[in-house]
Amino acid sequence: MPKAIGLIGTGNMGFAIAENLIKAGYSLVVYNRTFEKAKPLLDRGAREAKTPSEVAEAGGIAITMVSDDSALNEITLSGGLMEKLGKDGIHISMSTVSPFTSRELACKHRGIGAYYVSAPVFGRPEHARESKLWICIAGDASAKERAKPILKPLSQGIYDFGEDVGYANLVKLLGNFMICAVKEQLAEVFAIGMKFGISPGILADFYTSTLFPAPIYKRYSDLIIDRAFEPAGFRLALGLKDMNLLTETAQSASVRMPFLNVIHERLQTAIEKGRADLDWSALALGAFEDAELS
Amino acid sequence: MPKAIGLIGTGNMGFAIAENLIKAGYSLVVYNRTFEKAKPLLDRGAREAKTPSEVAEAGGIAITMVSDDSALNEITLSGGLMEKLGKDGIHISMSTVSPFTSRELACKHRGIGAYYVSAPVFGRPEHARESKLWICIAGDASAKERAKPILKPLSQGIYDFGEDVGYANLVKLLGNFMICAVKEQLAEVFAIGMKFGISPGILADFYTSTLFPAPIYKRYSDLIIDRAFEPAGFRLALGLKDMNLLTETAQSASVRMPFLNVIHERLQTAIEKGRADLDWSALALGAFEDAELS
Repeated sequence: MPKAIGLIGTGNMGFAIAENLIKAGYSLVVYNRTFEKAKPLLDRGAREAKTPSEVAEAGGIAITMVSDDSALNEITLSGGLMEKLGKDGIHISMSTVSPFTSRELACKHRGIGAYYVSAPVFGRPEHARESKLWICIAGDASAKERAKPILKPLSQGIYDFGEDVGYANLVKLLGNFMICAVKEQLAEVFAIGMKFGISPGILADFYTSTLFPAPIYKRYSDLIIDRAFEPAGFRLALGLKDMNLLTETAQSASVRMPFLNVIHERLQTAIEKGRADLDWSALALGAFEDAELS
Repeated sequence: MPKAIGLIGTGNMGFAIAENLIKAGYSLVVYNRTFEKAKPLLDRGAREAKTPSEVAEAGGIAITMVSDDSALNEITLSGGLMEKLGKDGIHISMSTVSPFTSRELACKHRGIGAYYVSAPVFGRPEHARESKLWICIAGDASAKERAKPILKPLSQGIYDFGEDVGYANLVKLLGNFMICAVKEQLAEVFAIGMKFGISPGILADFYTSTLFPAPIYKRYSDLIIDRAFEPAGFRLALGLKDMNLLTETAQSASVRMPFLNVIHERLQTAIEKGRADLDWSALALGAFEDAELS
């Protein structure tokens, strides 16, 4: 049995991950900015840390699952997590952040003999609960070997993208872009269908049983058709955060992504309309409103 | 056994359809503007028609599979096909045309007691050969009942969209739009991946084995990665024709479709670059060229 594992961030995803790590037999030390959210984990044997650095042991392993790049930087650097992990410590970073943030942090970890492993995940909270995440992993080979057994009970598959920690983050951002592209595409199709009198349900049934049998087409069709935007599986504000990161990444590499521009604008408009806390599938409302469908 | 069936249009798709109808035991009368293409069908028992109207018998059934709205109108009206079919005759129109063209033709057919059934198909020529088309059907209920047994040996599924013939055409155009959206989305993802040093093959393997297990993602990833644009399964010029029709349809219904606008522009640019005869998956080259990837 390994030593205790630290875990920072017990939001929707982090909480489910913590539960599954406990179930898999790990002893957990957890920190969350608003600790109330983490409390139910204490009944299951987790210990509370009062500060980010308290979750870590020297040379040990800590997982972070926080909302954005600045939270990650803050916890890791001024919060003292990296320093505490120290030589041979491993920071498994599961948050969706910029490839550049990961590369910088990886460099800083190496500077003190610690390792930063990128391990962003695909899946909604229900997938996290069911241990059905897909995990993209990248970083130092030996550190990844120590990280993988911990990630295994969380996932239905771990995909290794090599040593460049930024690669796993880019794959994650691009996956979220592709999911948004599916939603926008469905929204445009449903909008014109409705204008002509063909119900979205009929269109969704046809396309998902013929050309697009991927579960993601089915799931987002249902969410959009039922307008099941609350409670949010993934908040629209976080979707915009991700597409901001990807837009910056694309610009830095001089890659024009016109579909990304459309999605980015949809998300920005949605935020302006007060939809930050709805599920990100609410980006579909943009196409409906453009077509003056209620 | 029904009487002979007429078939007009023996291009890639029409030819495969003709073969399967002969295989299913129908006797066929075929017409093609350049008859050379239809010749191999004569060896298998088809008869040659010298004019479009010659394929039809009064009260019989004729299938058209031609390249665009104007060809369909010409054959049907000035070419005399509709007139020849006459009372109780059925025109099964499998071409990808505008919903408005179909509605107009349906109205004209009713005016002389004939029926126009929309039956556009999804599938590439190899699917047509393997009897694996998906067929969208719409039109008069009794006419559809007579048409369906003929379409059955061509398809893996017939989907009925009701009495409005335009519905089947709209579903077809929207499906082609969705396929184009997948290609553009993949192209943008591959472009940024390449700029960062992640190969498109690695990205395609990951996404098609996790989020997007739909065969269409796999097939178009392969076509784009291998730049297998010749011979064309579906010519880019025809893709533009379809997206022109959808753009007009969306405009007429006051539906803004920003993804469609992106695709439409990609296809237009591709035509300007001399790619009309490449496979429509060559629209992906636009994103690569924007990123200055060769």
